[in-house]
Amino acid sequence: MRAEILSVGTEIMLGEITDTNAAWLAGRLPAFGIDLLYVSQVGDNPGRMHEIFERAWGRSDLVIVTGGLGPTEDDITRETVAALLGEPLTVDAEQERIVRAWFEGRGWAFGERNLKQAMLIPSARAIVNPRGTAPGWWVERDGRVMVLMPGVPPEMYYMWETEVEPELERRADSVLVSRTLKTLGMGEGTVDETLSPLLAGTNPSIGIYARGDGVHARVSAKARTREEAWRLIEPVETEARRLLGPIVWGIDDDTLAGGVGRLLNERGLTVAVMESATGGAIADALTSVDGSAEYVRGSLVTYATETKILMGVPAEVIAAHGVISRETSEAMAQAARARLGADVGLGLTGIAGSETVEGQPPGTMHIAVTDGTRTAYTHSAFYQGRDASKRRAVTEALGLLRGFVMGQGA
Amino acid sequence: MRAEILSVGTEIMLGEITDTNAAWLAGRLPAFGIDLLYVSQVGDNPGRMHEIFERAWGRSDLVIVTGGLGPTEDDITRETVAALLGEPLTVDAEQERIVRAWFEGRGWAFGERNLKQAMLIPSARAIVNPRGTAPGWWVERDGRVMVLMPGVPPEMYYMWETEVEPELERRADSVLVSRTLKTLGMGEGTVDETLSPLLAGTNPSIGIYARGDGVHARVSAKARTREEAWRLIEPVETEARRLLGPIVWGIDDDTLAGGVGRLLNERGLTVAVMESATGGAIADALTSVDGSAEYVRGSLVTYATETKILMGVPAEVIAAHGVISRETSEAMAQAARARLGADVGLGLTGIAGSETVEGQPPGTMHIAVTDGTRTAYTHSAFYQGRDASKRRAVTEALGLLRGFVMGQGA
Repeated sequence: MRAEILSVGTEIMLGEITDTNAAWLAGRLPAFGIDLLYVSQVGDNPGRMHEIFERAWGRSDLVIVTGGLGPTEDDITRETVAALLGEPLTVDAEQERIVRAWFEGRGWAFGERNLKQAMLIPSARAIVNPRGTAPGWWVERDGRVMVLMPGVPPEMYYMWETEVEPELERRADSVLVSRTLKTLGMGEGTVDETLSPLLAGTNPSIGIYARGDGVHARVSAKARTREEAWRLIEPVETEARRLLGPIVWGIDDDTLAGGVGRLLNERGLTVAVMESATGGAIADALTSVDGSAEYVRGSLVTYATETKILMGVPAEVIAAHGVISRETSEAMAQAARARLGADVGLGLTGIAGSETVEGQPPGTMHIAVTDGTRTAYTHSAFYQGRDASKRRAVTEALGLLRGFVMGQGA
Repeated sequence: MRAEILSVGTEIMLGEITDTNAAWLAGRLPAFGIDLLYVSQVGDNPGRMHEIFERAWGRSDLVIVTGGLGPTEDDITRETVAALLGEPLTVDAEQERIVRAWFEGRGWAFGERNLKQAMLIPSARAIVNPRGTAPGWWVERDGRVMVLMPGVPPEMYYMWETEVEPELERRADSVLVSRTLKTLGMGEGTVDETLSPLLAGTNPSIGIYARGDGVHARVSAKARTREEAWRLIEPVETEARRLLGPIVWGIDDDTLAGGVGRLLNERGLTVAVMESATGGAIADALTSVDGSAEYVRGSLVTYATETKILMGVPAEVIAAHGVISRETSEAMAQAARARLGADVGLGLTGIAGSETVEGQPPGTMHIAVTDGTRTAYTHSAFYQGRDASKRRAVTEALGLLRGFVMGQGA
């Protein structure tokens, strides 16, 4: 099946918004064995919309459109499709009832122009939109399908997942299902080598990708149904996990902070942080997880040297080794743990900015973890701007913490 | 001038990357009086690339292409353009020298396949790329222009700003220049009303936009040169600033954290934070600014209630008013200031998660600022998911801090 995506909106053409809908949809299509061949963006212009819709309808089996379904005069996606197919637009009684109920439920006045959101053509059926006023359209004629959805991402995502995907799955000859194993602590080449006994397979196949949070191994299987595909994936996933061992920290949509949190919870441990160059970003990541209040005691963002000393880092350690040093990071981990009464302390000191400090290059980070007995330490020097340095340091810190806590249970 | 953007890359069609280049470029074109009419993405496929390039070259005065300039066999943007124009591809001696020097300078082996990056056609001149190996192309024939640039964003941005924009400016009949005034503390409607004496003008014109960091007023002027445009903007900007008064916290690319930092620096003040629900995000924002070590003492991320008490919040205050209360936020501001020896303390307590706590709805935030004498306070309840709640709270906290410090000097 050959698919094409059209994103409608003058804001896109002015650079006021980035079309993230197209990329999101593109990522969902391979699961249904659908090849995406073209993506186009166009403003709310009748002539150019007609041109682009006509070409898409002529060359693709499935045309996916987002945007232009709102109530204003600029929103002309429905009109464009009706004209292209030569079919009359009429208000659908059931859709009118739904749109009116949406306004009533919120105590909003119903303007007559909203009636256009209740319109259909004979070849279209409405796709419900519980997140907004505009229903989508499922248009089917001459063996081709066109799907119209709102451009507002949360509305579109929901409509796609609950209404469009089940329909595509029913029609698909095959589905593609993937399981991503997320790892930290091995390079891309080493993961590739480790999984080499499995890499010859074609169904499931394995792809290996370097990402900001480590190396991902994606196991993908094609089958007639999702259940069959999962049955193909299962033994390969099990074997991949056996080969990779403890470097696997999560799957699919898991985040590193979430994985670390799960581990801390399982072991009944709490954590406290003293961070300098990351400026609160480690704590921000740790507390981005629902339920993190269970195991995060807090973080001391000791940006100034005097603040480090105030919070328990011995002035002698800093005097002897410098602020940007292994010893200071270890003393920070220790102080965080002691000060905040946590089981595990994490300390980070380094340089987020572009300057060289104490003879160490921009991006230098010293990171330590301790439970009062055992201490783990790592350092790195990665600089591609202030923000990137901070993000990278957060990943390294969470990775070190994860490894430490894993060892904890051994 | 009618422009069109083509983004090339199979990764885009698989949803592995979002095409942010098109949006970035789209946002730059209005400055040169250029209308963007079409944007398309296409994979590294010879047939479809030819189809799309041919159509673009036929209908647009300026075609901007990103991607497909790398050294691999998949990278066929040069080949596509050469075939479209019926011109021979040959290695350019000067470009070969530059590409070889790039490899030598890094001590990398030069593979012969990299020679393709040194190729040109008669209608193309090379655009230098100091950030990477692949030069761009400026193609000009029959009164039309096609610009080829690498898909890697930092390489493309640099090439566009240093090489392409000056050329477009030379050719433009007119340029559009904008100055954005960023405000906080008034709604969109009130800003609109305040600026109403200026809104009738058409050159400069003023647009008002609600954004995550407040309301923006954009003054735009069209003229033959940038200098002329700035001369038109200046009096209107001055008058807009006078009308808006102290709610203007920055211009153009300024961030709220940067604006607050500049203010603190000017007044010679230091700040310390105690934050709970934002989990370090306030400190992360404050320290995202180069030079923030001058005025940020640190932040105490007191996620657990016991941590708040350990760090100096009186247990009686929490017992009497609850953790999520105005009184606790004020005690946190006070404790941060005292504990870290700062001039100004900022305290925030609230609910980032989706639960109701102490009878207060998800997203509730209590924020206080104090200098030991004066105290300012605000609260809000905004919930659209954990992350959005945290981001919104950071904006409110920085806004409160800014207002407080402004008052400080009065």
